[in-house]
Amino acid sequence: MSSQVLVPWSDIGSYGELPARLAVRVYDGIGEPPSDVSEVEFYVLPYDRGPEPSKLMARMPALRAVQSLSAGVDSVLPLLPEGVRLANGRGLHDASVAEHALALILAAQRDFPRWIRQQDAAEWSREHTRSLADCRVALVGYGSIGRAIKPFLDAADAEVIPVASTARPDENVRGVDELRELLPTVDILVLVLPDTASTQGLIGAAELAALPDDALVVNVGRGRTMDTEALLAEAKSGRLRAALDVMDPEPPPPDHPLWTTDGVVITPHIAGGSASFYPRAKRLIVEQLRRFASGDELLNVVQ
Amino acid sequence: MSSQVLVPWSDIGSYGELPARLAVRVYDGIGEPPSDVSEVEFYVLPYDRGPEPSKLMARMPALRAVQSLSAGVDSVLPLLPEGVRLANGRGLHDASVAEHALALILAAQRDFPRWIRQQDAAEWSREHTRSLADCRVALVGYGSIGRAIKPFLDAADAEVIPVASTARPDENVRGVDELRELLPTVDILVLVLPDTASTQGLIGAAELAALPDDALVVNVGRGRTMDTEALLAEAKSGRLRAALDVMDPEPPPPDHPLWTTDGVVITPHIAGGSASFYPRAKRLIVEQLRRFASGDELLNVVQ
Repeated sequence: MSSQVLVPWSDIGSYGELPARLAVRVYDGIGEPPSDVSEVEFYVLPYDRGPEPSKLMARMPALRAVQSLSAGVDSVLPLLPEGVRLANGRGLHDASVAEHALALILAAQRDFPRWIRQQDAAEWSREHTRSLADCRVALVGYGSIGRAIKPFLDAADAEVIPVASTARPDENVRGVDELRELLPTVDILVLVLPDTASTQGLIGAAELAALPDDALVVNVGRGRTMDTEALLAEAKSGRLRAALDVMDPEPPPPDHPLWTTDGVVITPHIAGGSASFYPRAKRLIVEQLRRFASGDELLNVVQ
Repeated sequence: MSSQVLVPWSDIGSYGELPARLAVRVYDGIGEPPSDVSEVEFYVLPYDRGPEPSKLMARMPALRAVQSLSAGVDSVLPLLPEGVRLANGRGLHDASVAEHALALILAAQRDFPRWIRQQDAAEWSREHTRSLADCRVALVGYGSIGRAIKPFLDAADAEVIPVASTARPDENVRGVDELRELLPTVDILVLVLPDTASTQGLIGAAELAALPDDALVVNVGRGRTMDTEALLAEAKSGRLRAALDVMDPEPPPPDHPLWTTDGVVITPHIAGGSASFYPRAKRLIVEQLRRFASGDELLNVVQ
């Protein structure tokens, strides 16, 4: 007897052999969901498609396991039916977020907003820029994404100071309790933090004030870890710069100063969603389907 | 008796001890040059200040050595007085050019022109982008700058194919004669070539046609190594994309399609001139002054 699985891609079979006993159906999260999902036993939530895909779980009485493709599953948990296993997408976005972090740092240090605006105006005006080379960079949040950012900074001849919730002296990782004394010494502060009770507002007015003049603040974690008003006050005065993929509020309302403040670059929370995500996600799903069909424990189970 | 040297920075003494027998004067290439340069024996040409600094050599009868801070000295050679030694700035710009190359690649792959224009319009519209991860990148020109770019690409989980004038199988470097067969296999083509008889027009219509659809062409070497018209034809059709710090003509006239063609990002030849250059340049000059004062051979002598 076959088990029904619902995945977001029709080409999943080209990423590895699928167990013969699975009947694979496709729902990409954009079009109309399949009308009858009553026999779906394994459901891979389409990535980054809003709340609709999660609501579908309520119509899946045969459901045994759900795979999220995000690292954070806060929005899925309240809708997860009793007794259903949930696995997350830990690691799938690391490469994508890490290279976007570097893209933000370099865009800011090497003045890309200026060059793009100049190009739009057909204007050739040259000026030497800042570098990433020789900068001292605090990498706050040192999980798998932070670790994926570090080799870029090493390649750039920058000095990296990893900071995690607890110091790990054997890896040269500093504890977050040392942050206040580190901040005055760094040129670039990169935040790669989840949104938790202990990270919310971690970077407030006092922390920003501790940074030296002209420092760059980068956020690819979650917006609420930083006090937006305090950041904007420092940016407006010309003292600090920022490059943000996440922010608070998100998205900013049309008249919010995040759009218009000099020295602030924003991208619309797209760090994790680049092409590199898909092959990694599809390879994970092939492995998860193999495990599901064989009755083996899934990877990345969070509940 | 002291020897007079003319350098572009007044703070050179903070980068190392200067020999006591040198009388150091300063000319930064922007203001009026010193009126009497008749006793200058060692002249460090101000960087990136146009042709005026080189012309000053004609008024230096005591001149024994000239230090350029560029790698290319084509514009200095015709003005170099008979019998005067010339040293170049080889290596000083490697870190700066390498990180700008990566900035161009990431700006193009991760759609930064779009995000910056959206920010200007207070528009939050999200779309998944290309990645650098998993891309196959041909690095054409594999001297010190190419070698400085490679660690960034390694960090990005990209596959790097270095290409030099001659194959070096022990280093996995391919010869330029293999380029035509490599081009159909690469996602990104990065040019890091000097302007010489053998590199001019190296990338023409046939080479560009050999690239796969949606490939990105990056140039941080010299503009004349690529056929601009052929590139623009491929970009206009939407088949190829480009991110260029150097181009031909440079600068493009105001009505040139380099400014306006979709998928083409240009920066105004600023890859080499970022903050990381200065400490490296000043440390080199301290060492050169020490050698000059002791009668030792200078570093980087080209003539």
